Amino acid sequence: MKIAVAQLNYHIGNFEGNVDKMLKATADAKAQGADIIVFGELSTCGYPPRDFLEFDDFIKESEASVQRLAAASKDIAIVVGSPTVNPVIEGKDLYNSAIFLYDGKVQYTQHKALLPTYDIFDEYRYFEPATEFGVVEFKGKKIALSVCEDIWNVGNENPLYVICPLDEMMKYEPDFIINLSASPFNFNHANTRISVLKANVDRYGLPMFYVNHSGAQTEVIFDGGSLVMSPDGNVFDELPYFQEELRVYELEEVVNGGVNKVQEKEKIALIHDALVTGIRDYFGKLGFKKCILGLSGGIDSAVTSALAARALGAENVLNVLMPSKFSSDHSVSDAEQLAINFGSPYKIIPIKDTFDAFMDTLSPHFEGLPFNITEENLQARSRGVILMALSNKFGHILLNTSNKSEMAVGYGTLYGDMCGGLSVIGDVYKMDVYALARYINKDKELIPENTIVKPPSAELRPDQKDSDSLPDYAILDEILYEYIENRQGPKELIEKGFDEKLVRRVLRMVNINEFKRYQTAPVLRVSSKAFGMGRRMPIVGKYLS
Amino acid sequence: MKIAVAQLNYHIGNFEGNVDKMLKATADAKAQGADIIVFGELSTCGYPPRDFLEFDDFIKESEASVQRLAAASKDIAIVVGSPTVNPVIEGKDLYNSAIFLYDGKVQYTQHKALLPTYDIFDEYRYFEPATEFGVVEFKGKKIALSVCEDIWNVGNENPLYVICPLDEMMKYEPDFIINLSASPFNFNHANTRISVLKANVDRYGLPMFYVNHSGAQTEVIFDGGSLVMSPDGNVFDELPYFQEELRVYELEEVVNGGVNKVQEKEKIALIHDALVTGIRDYFGKLGFKKCILGLSGGIDSAVTSALAARALGAENVLNVLMPSKFSSDHSVSDAEQLAINFGSPYKIIPIKDTFDAFMDTLSPHFEGLPFNITEENLQARSRGVILMALSNKFGHILLNTSNKSEMAVGYGTLYGDMCGGLSVIGDVYKMDVYALARYINKDKELIPENTIVKPPSAELRPDQKDSDSLPDYAILDEILYEYIENRQGPKELIEKGFDEKLVRRVLRMVNINEFKRYQTAPVLRVSSKAFGMGRRMPIVGKYLS
Repeated sequence: MKIAVAQLNYHIGNFEGNVDKMLKATADAKAQGADIIVFGELSTCGYPPRDFLEFDDFIKESEASVQRLAAASKDIAIVVGSPTVNPVIEGKDLYNSAIFLYDGKVQYTQHKALLPTYDIFDEYRYFEPATEFGVVEFKGKKIALSVCEDIWNVGNENPLYVICPLDEMMKYEPDFIINLSASPFNFNHANTRISVLKANVDRYGLPMFYVNHSGAQTEVIFDGGSLVMSPDGNVFDELPYFQEELRVYELEEVVNGGVNKVQEKEKIALIHDALVTGIRDYFGKLGFKKCILGLSGGIDSAVTSALAARALGAENVLNVLMPSKFSSDHSVSDAEQLAINFGSPYKIIPIKDTFDAFMDTLSPHFEGLPFNITEENLQARSRGVILMALSNKFGHILLNTSNKSEMAVGYGTLYGDMCGGLSVIGDVYKMDVYALARYINKDKELIPENTIVKPPSAELRPDQKDSDSLPDYAILDEILYEYIENRQGPKELIEKGFDEKLVRRVLRMVNINEFKRYQTAPVLRVSSKAFGMGRRMPIVGKYLS
Repeated sequence: MKIAVAQLNYHIGNFEGNVDKMLKATADAKAQGADIIVFGELSTCGYPPRDFLEFDDFIKESEASVQRLAAASKDIAIVVGSPTVNPVIEGKDLYNSAIFLYDGKVQYTQHKALLPTYDIFDEYRYFEPATEFGVVEFKGKKIALSVCEDIWNVGNENPLYVICPLDEMMKYEPDFIINLSASPFNFNHANTRISVLKANVDRYGLPMFYVNHSGAQTEVIFDGGSLVMSPDGNVFDELPYFQEELRVYELEEVVNGGVNKVQEKEKIALIHDALVTGIRDYFGKLGFKKCILGLSGGIDSAVTSALAARALGAENVLNVLMPSKFSSDHSVSDAEQLAINFGSPYKIIPIKDTFDAFMDTLSPHFEGLPFNITEENLQARSRGVILMALSNKFGHILLNTSNKSEMAVGYGTLYGDMCGGLSVIGDVYKMDVYALARYINKDKELIPENTIVKPPSAELRPDQKDSDSLPDYAILDEILYEYIENRQGPKELIEKGFDEKLVRRVLRMVNINEFKRYQTAPVLRVSSKAFGMGRRMPIVGKYLS
């Protein structure tokens, strides 16, 4: 029996496009002699469909997509993920289902039981958990069909859940396991995923075909890396990261095993590829080609510009240099050099006149109060307005260049440097931004060395340095990581040896700046806890603040 | 037996403040001879605490708050809502609990079973549902303790749930029911709430004490309206809306019933009071006193300014009039008249010079392209920058003045008129904004009549009218309401008789503008489906767009 693993990049709500893509893969798999082709979780409608699931029309379109695929399941079985209607009045309206199509119709449907409802996941908002489990028989084989999280409670060892769906399915003695997933990237996740699959295979002694999505849906990036596991616990094959791929496997060879093919998983390289994917799909799926960004000569905008050039092509990245009287000479020359190194277009548009116009207009109303954050923000906002005007005039999307460290502590100007349709490095701490720069330069100095080595500065007042108002990034990043990713509170942080005053100051900065992050662009997610939909915090609160 | 209903305004994470407030109410209730005092759901930590619940430190603070209250439960029983730790490894880490304190310690704990996970609610993200139910005995009475949603599946008629907690508790033959709630306002909800309570009381034939929160937590507004229900199905008492209140009831009198005291529920009046509460608490809980807003002479900013004057005091509302060459004469005079009518300060700051500076700076880069949305947005963004500068200089919070109709269709400028820390009328459709204006003027013309009767215009190009680019608001609002609040799709809308082309155009406008709403301020929620945390939509999608 030959099984095709189809790792595809879906588009939320684009039923026609998604089905066309699956039909093409089905034809290719059939040409290669496949008996079964397997797609990802909710592949008809894309993942995550979010509140579109509350629209009957959206569910009917999903059902119609399944029917289109069913019609193509003549000499090949198709396993597709789709929302299905819960016929019982009590409970949520929908199931998240794996559907086995053959001979023109639905042969079997297995609903998902473990519904992730944490971080970016809201599945219990929409879906009723499965309580019944079985297998589907096909050409003399019994197949356990499962959806994503349902294999993540092996031996009931995941504290989140009380049942183990595969344990239930084993009562029917399946020959192999299929899992339809939509498992988003974070820089540790590919390793975790292999461990979990290995734990399943070790427990059940069965081969497993694990099919993930590739590509990005706004902030959520699917890395692919679909897996074929042999019963001996080895990885028979791991599909490439961040791209579509169709591969066909002979079941017997998988059962025999004896190979272990895993790809290298280097954190910074993966983050780099994830961010390039995130930019590429945000633009591609919205139908845009060109981006614009402010290039300051600093490391954050340099790395953002570099990633955009790789995602969209250098010619589609418009860099705008907007010096002020506080900009140092090297700011412009470093930024210029970067654009030249990549071959991206750039413009120099000084903000002196617009800043002066604001000051002339506003000074009579400032009641003689001294220069403060207001004037700093006026510079950042002059730049934001200029970038948005060019974006509007030429139809480019503005990329935001804030990093995670500064977004965390609110070191940025709302409606100024926090403008943009997509935050590229908003889930990358400052120290990792440096590492990304080094990685981008690994074969050749593309980002000017001076951009990497000079002390970071917002250049909004004379001789300003980030270190005037922020702790050293090496320490700041550690505290932030413990607080944000690991949910460590003040007591735990102080116990770990961080200075108490510093801990309280950093946590307070994080908490009082929730209002700024609330209005930030979606952030490409590369960590286990990114700002945005995965981290939901009150604005009006009084806790560690 | 005397039971005190304490309807209080909590503050998320402000454990000390919340407990102080509850201790004071306990002392007052004791002075009035109460045997029991009842507070709201999660009253130790405030509702909704969101992802703060993932921090052990936050849970420990909640537990310490319960202990502080326990120490005060000497001659009075205290019923408090708080998160508690699930001692079992499997399942979510926490329960959402009602805790009965007496004689200095915890006498009984009842966890919540029905965990709302829809709209603004994410309870299954944090809490394990209760599976065990009982009653607590106190001074010869048996009491059924329940938390909020647990009374919302009377007779298993709520399709969301499969169990009915009160049915379970009835096995122990309680004498009365207590319900601790955090039930947010929407303009239909107070009536629904009474119906649901009546259904419970009718089914069980028992008196019920239903204790809600009052006050706002960012966008979520609690209206109070706590209820005491007699077994005859009548409302023995309904506490006031949008304010704190402590009332003590003699159980026997409640049992006797025979009165039906309900307050008037007029939609526009309720929305008015809800928005005033929302503004007041946003400022109060963040420690701010003064707001700033752009006053255009149009209806939206006029109503926002009026509501702010009522919430904060007219002297704390700084109105800024920022005419451009496209502003009509009446814009400035209408806006001025409004500020004078309310006695609010105002400034006139023309945007000509800043707009001209942007045009001078940008024109060489516009490649001779004609005047378009870019120049319109430059005006709106000049205003946004001016408002934010004044906000920064004087420490005022900028109020956003967009209404729900324009937010829905994307008729607004990101980083321009969409700036602001809080969206006051972003959940109020345009036709209801007019009704609010009439309501504000009910005793006296405060909002100038001309502001109400003139055709709405953004005044960003010569002779512009909203009707140039948008359908008539009366029709637009109906379509939006059916699509957003009622989740009706294109087919249902066309079947209802709306023009097909118009329906498709409006739905497309809503869907392609998700990226703008993503970066909008939190919106005070007054409907059953507000933009923001209650409506979660993909940005990158291709559905009805």
